[in-house]
Amino acid sequence: MKKMINGVESVLEESLKGFAKAHKDIITLNHQPHFVTRNIAADSPKVALISGGGSGHEPLHTGLVGRGMLDAACPGQIFTSPTPDQMMMAAQQAENGAGVLFIVKNYAGDVMNFEIAAEMLDCPHDTVLVSDDVSLPKDHSTGRRGVAGTLIVEKIVGAAAEAGADLASCKALGDKVANATASMGVALSSCTVPALGKPTFDIGENEVEMGVGIHGERGREPMDLSSASDMVDHLVAAIDKELFPGKGEKILLHVNGFGATPLMELYLVYDLASQYFSERGVEVERSLVGNFTTSLDMAGCSVTVTKLDQEMIQYWDAPVHTAALRWGY
Amino acid sequence: MKKMINGVESVLEESLKGFAKAHKDIITLNHQPHFVTRNIAADSPKVALISGGGSGHEPLHTGLVGRGMLDAACPGQIFTSPTPDQMMMAAQQAENGAGVLFIVKNYAGDVMNFEIAAEMLDCPHDTVLVSDDVSLPKDHSTGRRGVAGTLIVEKIVGAAAEAGADLASCKALGDKVANATASMGVALSSCTVPALGKPTFDIGENEVEMGVGIHGERGREPMDLSSASDMVDHLVAAIDKELFPGKGEKILLHVNGFGATPLMELYLVYDLASQYFSERGVEVERSLVGNFTTSLDMAGCSVTVTKLDQEMIQYWDAPVHTAALRWGY
Repeated sequence: MKKMINGVESVLEESLKGFAKAHKDIITLNHQPHFVTRNIAADSPKVALISGGGSGHEPLHTGLVGRGMLDAACPGQIFTSPTPDQMMMAAQQAENGAGVLFIVKNYAGDVMNFEIAAEMLDCPHDTVLVSDDVSLPKDHSTGRRGVAGTLIVEKIVGAAAEAGADLASCKALGDKVANATASMGVALSSCTVPALGKPTFDIGENEVEMGVGIHGERGREPMDLSSASDMVDHLVAAIDKELFPGKGEKILLHVNGFGATPLMELYLVYDLASQYFSERGVEVERSLVGNFTTSLDMAGCSVTVTKLDQEMIQYWDAPVHTAALRWGY
Repeated sequence: MKKMINGVESVLEESLKGFAKAHKDIITLNHQPHFVTRNIAADSPKVALISGGGSGHEPLHTGLVGRGMLDAACPGQIFTSPTPDQMMMAAQQAENGAGVLFIVKNYAGDVMNFEIAAEMLDCPHDTVLVSDDVSLPKDHSTGRRGVAGTLIVEKIVGAAAEAGADLASCKALGDKVANATASMGVALSSCTVPALGKPTFDIGENEVEMGVGIHGERGREPMDLSSASDMVDHLVAAIDKELFPGKGEKILLHVNGFGATPLMELYLVYDLASQYFSERGVEVERSLVGNFTTSLDMAGCSVTVTKLDQEMIQYWDAPVHTAALRWGY
């Protein structure tokens, strides 16, 4: 295992310390337990948006805390759910009179721990569950996984909360965005969790893992390595089948790198995916290309599509100031 | 070779097409020859800042074209200098009455081709040469390489040009920033150029390439893989020896990923590097952490330090709107 770390025990703590120093204008890091909160409060009381999940997906979620987006994020150990006490304390600190909305990726551990935290909270609260990964069937036993579409939910609901939307409105908007969003990914290599010290799954030299999860979970099946056009067709066809945006409908197209794939290839994937939808008469209205929901050093990428209405476009365009996403401030 | 491409001949063209579509609000792509120009002109005539270099280092330089930064960028083939006609045509299109300033990384091919282009230009022009890589001695036969410090020069001079500084002032400022900047990098893996189809250099399972260039050029020597603290000490000691910022002096600290190293590790490196300078009484005044000057899928990172004065801080903070760097707009 080749990594720039000092030890598998200290990597998360040291990394968070660096993150907090580099972005001390935006966020503050709490130790014991770990959570990150935004520094600059909104002009008036607002719904506190809180997310979290295993580490190793940076910049998700800590890099999305700040004005116009999350109020707090709880980083778990690498690929491990944060604990209820992290979520509780983050919620108590971030809450400022308008209630708490948890935004949770659909993974069993995350869901359970956010539920426990929610039960302990004595202020109004609700949860938006994101399960945008269409590689699994809708009736899969534990539901579909929450992946890169989570960022879209966080951005749009973040802008609404910043503009003063109440808890019920934020919850309804979050559900609307989550339901309008679908993603699928493909891995060209495995990733290596430091504590494990070796790749988390095997993949042949001429294979790719189609429908992979963000921890390297198997999706559909390994398939032969083929052209980018072929692989992108698989991804967008699955998304299209789910959302089926109509002619003239507007979408947000997000190509997300898993970590080790050059930006050059991500833009190439974007070109192919946007071409697919343009040819169907769908309007690619907003775009995001880059490494946002990563899986450590995994090579590959995912495509996420959100069907947009005017409200969602307006909130997507609203100012945001976080470590990873920034405009208008 | 596992890449998301359709063929080694078409990868650059397809990637640029995707880039242009994803950022059509910021830039326009010219075909035959390839160059990218900003869409929104400055309020009044300004010095046209033009950079370029081999592709494979994205987002450098195309991702740095836009308001407050570059006016145009010329992407060459992967790891190959752009041609003089690209630079000429980009300069002619971007020039708007206040002259042209080329910002050039010190690589023999880039330098030669920018010189040829400059000779053909019939408007006032000048060049800032960036050679920030301190892994080679100052008197090295072809000089030191230009690496991640180039972004710092482009941002600061970009803000000055946007504010109306004339050609001579932009040139002087660019030289000042370049002289106040030092970088060094370490590679944990090689990178794979599509046309070559295999890693460009060999590196042992327990080795790292200390002082590596952004195309995988050998720097100092391979050394044993060691702790992050040890590797960062090597990087910052070399930079410190060059710049020797004094107690109370302000620096910009930039940790740049080469492509395949997780953000988590980059923040860990940032923590160690900033600790080093803080302990010396140096003030880390501004920070930038992320993948900006990449080497395709190479694992590893570089550290860049710029000694800052008030003018440089003010220009660093000025608004910028490019694909890769954005704030204040």
